[in-house]
This record gives sequence, structure tokens and C-alpha cells, in this order.
Amino acid sequence: MKELEERIKRDGQVLAGGILKVDSFINHQVDAGLMDRCGREFAARFAKLGATKVLTAEISGIAPALTTALHLGIPVVYARKTKPITMPDQVYLTLAPSHTKGRMVELIVSPQYLATGERVLIIDDFLASGATILGLVRLAEAAGARIVGIGTVIEKTFEGGREVLQPVGVPVESLARITSMENESIVFAGE
Amino acid sequence: MKELEERIKRDGQVLAGGILKVDSFINHQVDAGLMDRCGREFAARFAKLGATKVLTAEISGIAPALTTALHLGIPVVYARKTKPITMPDQVYLTLAPSHTKGRMVELIVSPQYLATGERVLIIDDFLASGATILGLVRLAEAAGARIVGIGTVIEKTFEGGREVLQPVGVPVESLARITSMENESIVFAGE
Repeated sequence: MKELEERIKRDGQVLAGGILKVDSFINHQVDAGLMDRCGREFAARFAKLGATKVLTAEISGIAPALTTALHLGIPVVYARKTKPITMPDQVYLTLAPSHTKGRMVELIVSPQYLATGERVLIIDDFLASGATILGLVRLAEAAGARIVGIGTVIEKTFEGGREVLQPVGVPVESLARITSMENESIVFAGE
Repeated sequence: MKELEERIKRDGQVLAGGILKVDSFINHQVDAGLMDRCGREFAARFAKLGATKVLTAEISGIAPALTTALHLGIPVVYARKTKPITMPDQVYLTLAPSHTKGRMVELIVSPQYLATGERVLIIDDFLASGATILGLVRLAEAAGARIVGIGTVIEKTFEGGREVLQPVGVPVESLARITSMENESIVFAGE
């Protein structure tokens, strides 16, 4: 997605430890119009999969997942990282390592909103190691739901997440694929 | 907003301790279309205030704040509750009591995205005691920004938040105003 790549080039910042800082337009501050266009693009790419629900992880997955759900006309569920008091005692829970937090985090979904027979489209902001998305896959599978596709706004191809997700056997789409961030210079696939 | 009131009547659940559970359409699972219509309604009600930025608090404020920002054509900033490693050391930080967590939480905004001269519209999912929103007001004021309006999806009028926010001196709009939840029966203003 050309607009997104140009925005990453302009406003993205490569930090130490292979972190790409995009908190002026995706995390923290969000360009709502850009997120809406990302959601429309995901909806177009996944239109034929018959998804019944979008699944993401709080916090930074919420914006692109919401706009995708909006354009597909289906609900979105975001996995919680802490169990709110409004959630029942019986939940689906898995652990996933967080790159930006440097520790394991819980991913929790209420059985009320993820059920057998659902066709789940997973949307997240980043595809790096694939660990968070694999966690979402486990949650959906535990619920008896079927994963039909995986979409991420930004993929760092050199962190191997796409290979990790291959056994899931569904289409994986990323709107911007970064192949290198060496010397703080961002290079996209096809450049 | 009639559609929202009907949805709360149908799917909302009154829990012990005066908690209204709306996690089938606002928190956890989100009705993206409903959130979009809430955002459009906020945008219409606040159209003339010249807001330059929407401010909310993660996590459950993100959905209505994003759709409001989308319909106003401005960015949204969500205050973080934990400081990510991508954030600079110097931040705006305040403490606010969390009703659903039963403890104080931090609200953190990077000075990069909230500045002097900004006209800030605060959007959140709930107006109860007003404590979280007052925290957002303090953050915006610390940044030298001007609050121009406050919008919440659901207001519990009997928790006094509107009175707490009165000194801020800006319009406060809620899309559904609940005046009583006694005996697990939800009553809206005007009923």
C-alpha cells in the first residue's frame, strides 16, 4: 500500500533493538483516515473468505482491526491482556512473548464472543516474530473457530513471522513489507 | 441516541457494584458499525468547536475516539497506561482511579503529540465518576492545550461525573444517559 509505505518512510523511526517507532500515526497518536484506508484495503483483500469475526490483540491492534471490521460489516473482538472484572471466570487464555515489553503477556478471550463455527480473520498492527498472532490462532482454535486469514499493517520480513505462520495454512497479507532496517534506513519489498 | 439506548437495553448487563457490562458491543467485542455511528454523532455534535485532536484513554476509549476522529478528519491520541519503550523519557503523566480495576492507573501522553495551541476534544466510553476524564483534562492542560469538549458514549448520571466536569467549562455530551440501574433495570434520561 503505497500511501502507507510513504508514511512509514516519512514518519517512522528506527530505534535500537530493531524497533520501528510508528507512534505518530499508528500507535499512541493514530491517523484515523489512514487507518480507515488500511481497513478498507484489508476488507478488499479478504472479501471472499466469508469471515464472520475479526480478532486482534489490545492495544495497538484495535484501530486497524476496527476499521477492517467496519468495512467487512462484522464485529471485532480484541483479546485482553488483563482480565477485567466484567469477564466470566472461564476464559480462553494463552501466553505470548511481547517484543516491546520484553516479557510474556496473557491473551484472554471470553468464550461468549468466540465460538465453534466462527470464521476468524486475524488483524494486527505488526508481523515480526509472529508470536502474538500465533497466540491469537491458539485462542481461536481453542474456541473451535476456524482461522480464514491473517492481515498485518506492517511486516518485518527479516524476523521470520511469515514462516512461523505458514502451518496455519491461510493467506497472510501485509500492507507494508519491510525487508531491511539496517543503518536506520527502511527498505520495502520490491524496492 | 436511540439505537444505542436500545442496544444497551437489549445486551447490557447490570453487575454487582454498579458495573454496567457492555462487552458484547463496546468493550472486548465491538460492534464496528455502531461505533462508527457513535463517532458520526459525536462529530456532528462537536462540529463547530474547531477541535484539532481527539484525546482518549486506552483501552476501551479507542474505538469511539477513533471513529469520532475519522468523521472530524483529525488525529486521535490515546493516553497509555504503561509507558512503552518507544516513548521518550520526558512525558506528561497523571494518576486516575480506575473503577473497574479498583486501583490507581497512570495516564501517559508523549509531549510530541499534545502541544500548546491544540484544541482537544476528549472522547471516552463511560462517564461515571469523571475521574479518568479529569485525568485527561490535566494531561491536556499540562501540555498547554485547550479542552473544547467532552463526549462519552454512556453516562451514568447518578455517579456525579457531569458535576465533577463542570469547572472545565466545556460542553459535555453523552450518547446514552442512564439515570438508574436499580434492581438491574436500566432507565434512561427522559424515560
